[in-house]
Amino acid sequence: MNANLIRSVIYITALCALYLSMAMFLPALVDLYYGHRDWQVFALSGFLVGGIAGAAALATRGPPPAFNKRFGFLLVNVLWLMFSLVGAIPLFLAEYKTSFAQALFESISGITTTGSTIMVGLDKQPPGILLWRSLLCWLGGIGIVGLGLFVLPFLKVGGASIFKLESTETNDKPFARLASFTRAFLAVYILLTIACTVAYDVAGMSHFDALNHALSTVATAGFSTHDASFAFWKDNQAILVICTIFLTISSLPFSVLILLAMRGRLDTLRDPQIMVFLGYLGGIAVALGVYHHLRNSVELDDALIHSFFNIASILSTGGFSSDDYTLWGPFAVMLVFFASAMGGCSGSTSGGIKSYRFVVMFNTARAGINKLIYPNAIYPVRYGALIVDADTQRGVFLFLGLFLFLWVLGSLGMTLLGYDVVTSFSGVLTCLANVGPGIGPIIGPVGNFSTISDPALYLLSLLMLLGRLEILTVLVLLTPIFWRH
Amino acid sequence: MNANLIRSVIYITALCALYLSMAMFLPALVDLYYGHRDWQVFALSGFLVGGIAGAAALATRGPPPAFNKRFGFLLVNVLWLMFSLVGAIPLFLAEYKTSFAQALFESISGITTTGSTIMVGLDKQPPGILLWRSLLCWLGGIGIVGLGLFVLPFLKVGGASIFKLESTETNDKPFARLASFTRAFLAVYILLTIACTVAYDVAGMSHFDALNHALSTVATAGFSTHDASFAFWKDNQAILVICTIFLTISSLPFSVLILLAMRGRLDTLRDPQIMVFLGYLGGIAVALGVYHHLRNSVELDDALIHSFFNIASILSTGGFSSDDYTLWGPFAVMLVFFASAMGGCSGSTSGGIKSYRFVVMFNTARAGINKLIYPNAIYPVRYGALIVDADTQRGVFLFLGLFLFLWVLGSLGMTLLGYDVVTSFSGVLTCLANVGPGIGPIIGPVGNFSTISDPALYLLSLLMLLGRLEILTVLVLLTPIFWRH
Repeated sequence: MNANLIRSVIYITALCALYLSMAMFLPALVDLYYGHRDWQVFALSGFLVGGIAGAAALATRGPPPAFNKRFGFLLVNVLWLMFSLVGAIPLFLAEYKTSFAQALFESISGITTTGSTIMVGLDKQPPGILLWRSLLCWLGGIGIVGLGLFVLPFLKVGGASIFKLESTETNDKPFARLASFTRAFLAVYILLTIACTVAYDVAGMSHFDALNHALSTVATAGFSTHDASFAFWKDNQAILVICTIFLTISSLPFSVLILLAMRGRLDTLRDPQIMVFLGYLGGIAVALGVYHHLRNSVELDDALIHSFFNIASILSTGGFSSDDYTLWGPFAVMLVFFASAMGGCSGSTSGGIKSYRFVVMFNTARAGINKLIYPNAIYPVRYGALIVDADTQRGVFLFLGLFLFLWVLGSLGMTLLGYDVVTSFSGVLTCLANVGPGIGPIIGPVGNFSTISDPALYLLSLLMLLGRLEILTVLVLLTPIFWRH
Repeated sequence: MNANLIRSVIYITALCALYLSMAMFLPALVDLYYGHRDWQVFALSGFLVGGIAGAAALATRGPPPAFNKRFGFLLVNVLWLMFSLVGAIPLFLAEYKTSFAQALFESISGITTTGSTIMVGLDKQPPGILLWRSLLCWLGGIGIVGLGLFVLPFLKVGGASIFKLESTETNDKPFARLASFTRAFLAVYILLTIACTVAYDVAGMSHFDALNHALSTVATAGFSTHDASFAFWKDNQAILVICTIFLTISSLPFSVLILLAMRGRLDTLRDPQIMVFLGYLGGIAVALGVYHHLRNSVELDDALIHSFFNIASILSTGGFSSDDYTLWGPFAVMLVFFASAMGGCSGSTSGGIKSYRFVVMFNTARAGINKLIYPNAIYPVRYGALIVDADTQRGVFLFLGLFLFLWVLGSLGMTLLGYDVVTSFSGVLTCLANVGPGIGPIIGPVGNFSTISDPALYLLSLLMLLGRLEILTVLVLLTPIFWRH
C-alpha cells in the first residue's frame, strides 16, 4: 500500500460523493415543491456532503496511479462504504424517525439494489424521502453494472474473468473504449428508465409512482412507494406485465443490451448465460403458475401472470411482490426460496449466484463425471465458444462455497440474535443475494424489516454489501497478503 | 460393457447375497428361542435368498475380469441395490405389517446406516426383526468402510483420491495387501462392537439392547430398539457418554484406527480430517451446550452431556437422540440443521459432506483468495503434507455442488408430494447425508417416518442410496460414455 494509491482512492471516492451530494437536491426540490420540511434535510445534507467531498477531492488531487488489482479492490470497497454512509445521512435526519442502524440498512438496501425496507406507511410519506430511496437504487444499479462489466472481470472474482472485455488486454486505448462504453451504457440505462416510466404511467400509475417504480425496476431493486408493493395494482395486469418485462430486461447483461440497442445485434442474445437465465425463469414460472392454478383453483392466466411477475421479481433480485405467494403452498415456498439464491446475468443489476455460474458448474460437472471413466482424457469445460480455464472454474465453485458459508454463518448469527429459523435462514439469503423479501410472517412478501433489531440490521447490512461485491472482493481485504508491501 | 464383466458382477453380487442370506438365520434363531413365529419368515427368506444366490453364483463362476473403473462403478451400484432389496424381504414378510416401499426404505435406511425408521412400537416388537435391523446397519457399516477405504479412492470419486492407498499403485501384490488389510479392519470393527456391547451392558442396558445398540453405534446408523431412542436412558449419563465416545471413534477413518490398534501409532491421529472433525465436533457441541444452559436454565454438565451426545450423533451421522433438541431454541435447530450436512471422516461409517472436503475447500479458498492479488503466483493446495491436485479440488467442489443440487431437487419433490417445507427440506437432507432424524413434528428427533407416504419413501430411499454412494458413483451410470463400448 503506497501513499499515492491511498490518496487516489480518496480522490475518486470524494468525487463520487460529490456527485451523490448533487443528487440530494432532487428530493430537496420535490419536497420544497410539495411544501414538506424534509427539503431542508436534503438540502443541508447535500451542502454538507458536497462541501466535505469537494474539499477532500481538492486536497487529494493528483495523477492517477497505475491501475493494479490492489487499487481496484480497495477502491471498490471504499466506494461502496462511502455510498452506504452518505446515502444514510438524509434518511437518518429526515422526519421519518429511524435509528442509525435502520437508516444505514435502508441506504445499503437501496445502493445494493436489494430493496428490503425498514419503513412502514410508505403510502403517506413525503415524496422527497421516497424519491431518495428510488434514486439510491437507480444510482446503485449504475455502480453494479460498472462493477460487473469492468471491475470484477478484471479482478477475476468468482469466475467473472469469463467476461473480461477484449479491450482491456489487447487494445492500446482501454480508457478511451471504457469511456465510450460507459456513455453507451448510461444512454441505454436512461432510455430503459424513461421507457419504463412512460409504460407505467400509461398503464395507470400516477406520474410520481411511475417514476419511482421505474427507477427501482431497471435497478432490479424492489423499493416501492406503497407498503403493498405491486399488490397495490394486483388487478392491473398491464402494470404487472410491464414490470415483468422490464425486470427481465434489466437482468440481462448490459453489454448485450448495448450491442442490441446500438447495432441491433440480435445474435448477442445467444449468450449461454442469457439462454440459461431465460430458460430457468420460464421453467420455474410455468411450474409455479400451473401449481398455483391446480392447487388453489386460480384461473390459469391469472396464476401465470402473478407467477411470472413474482418469479421474475425474485430471479432478477428485484423483490417486488404482487401477492403473498408463500400462501400458495409448500412447493411455492420451496421454489421461491431456492430461486432467491439463483439471480440473473452477470453485467446486469441483478444479484445472487447468477446464471453463468450455473453454466460453468454444469459443464464442469459433466466433464468431471466423464473424467471418472477416462481419467486421462481431456474434457474442456466450455462457456459458449470459450474454454473455461481451471482458475475460472475454481473461482465459480469458490464463490458458491463462500456464498453458502456466509449463509450458514449469517443464519446462525440471526438465531443467536433471537430470530426464528425461517426468518433467519430466508432473511440472510435474501440480503446476501440482494433480493428483498424473505419468507415468514415478519419479512415475507407482505412483511418488511421494520421490526428487526439494530444488531440484526447491522448483520444483514454487512451481508448485503458482501453479496453485492461478490464476497471475494471484500474478503481479499482481510488477507495479510493484501496489505503486505 | 463386455459379457465377462457383467458375469463377474453377478457372481460377486450372488456371493454377497449368499453371505447376507446366512445372516438371516441369526434373527431366525433368536425368534425361535423366544417363541415368535417371525422365525419362519427369516428362515424361509434365508433359504430362498441363499438358494437363488447360490445357484446364481455357481452359474456365473469364472476368472475375475481385470479390475477397471467400469467394473468398479457397476459392481458398487449392483451390490447396494442387491443389499437393499434382499434386506427388505424379511422386513416385508414379517408379522409387522409394512408396504413394500416401507420395507425397502427400512432396509436401505439400515444398509446405508442412515437409521431413519418407519416402525413404531419398537419396544414391543419381537427380537428377530429388531436384530435384523441392527444387523443390516452393522453389515452396511462394513460395506461403507470398504467403499471409503478401497473403492472411492480408486474410482477418484468426489476428491476421495486423496486417500488412495500407496499399495494399489506401487505394490506388486495389491490383492495380498488388500486381504490382510480387510482382515485387520474386520478385527478392529468386531472388537469395537464387542467393547461397545460390554460397555452398554455394564452401564445398565439389557443384554439384547446392548448388542443391538452396539451394532447400530459402531455403524453410526441410529436404529434403536426403543421408540424413544436414547431418551429411554435420558438420565443414565454413563450410557450417553459411552455412546458419544463410540460414535466419535466410529467417525474416524478405520485405516487410522487399524494402525492405532495394531501398531499403537498415535501419530496417525494427526490426519487433518481427524483434527478438523474433532475440532468442529467440540466447537459445535460446546456452543450448543452453553446456549442450552443459558437459554433453558439447564445445569451446565447436563446441557453439555446432552449437547455432546446429540451433536456427536448428528456429525457421525448416527442419528440417535437423547432429547428433543429442536425445543432448545432456534439457534439449536439451525446448528443441528447445518451439522446434519457435515458428516465425519472418510473411511469411517459416517456420511455427509465429510471433514476432509472442508479441509480441501478451505485451503482451496485460501489459495484462490491469494491468487486474486498475485494471479501468476503458484499457491499449492495442501492436505497435510500432500499436495491436492486440480482434479481432486474439482472433485470436492463437484461433490458439494451435486449434493446441493439433489437437496434442492429432492426438497421440491417432497413439497410436490404434499409435505411442508421444514419436513421436506430437513427430510431430504437427513436422508442424503445418511443422518437419521429430520426437523419438525413429523420426522424430528422424537418423530419417525411411519406416516410418510409410499412415493415419498421411494424418493427418500433413492436419496439415501445416492448419498451413501457419494452421488457420483451412481450418476456416472447415467452417462452415455459409461455404456459406450
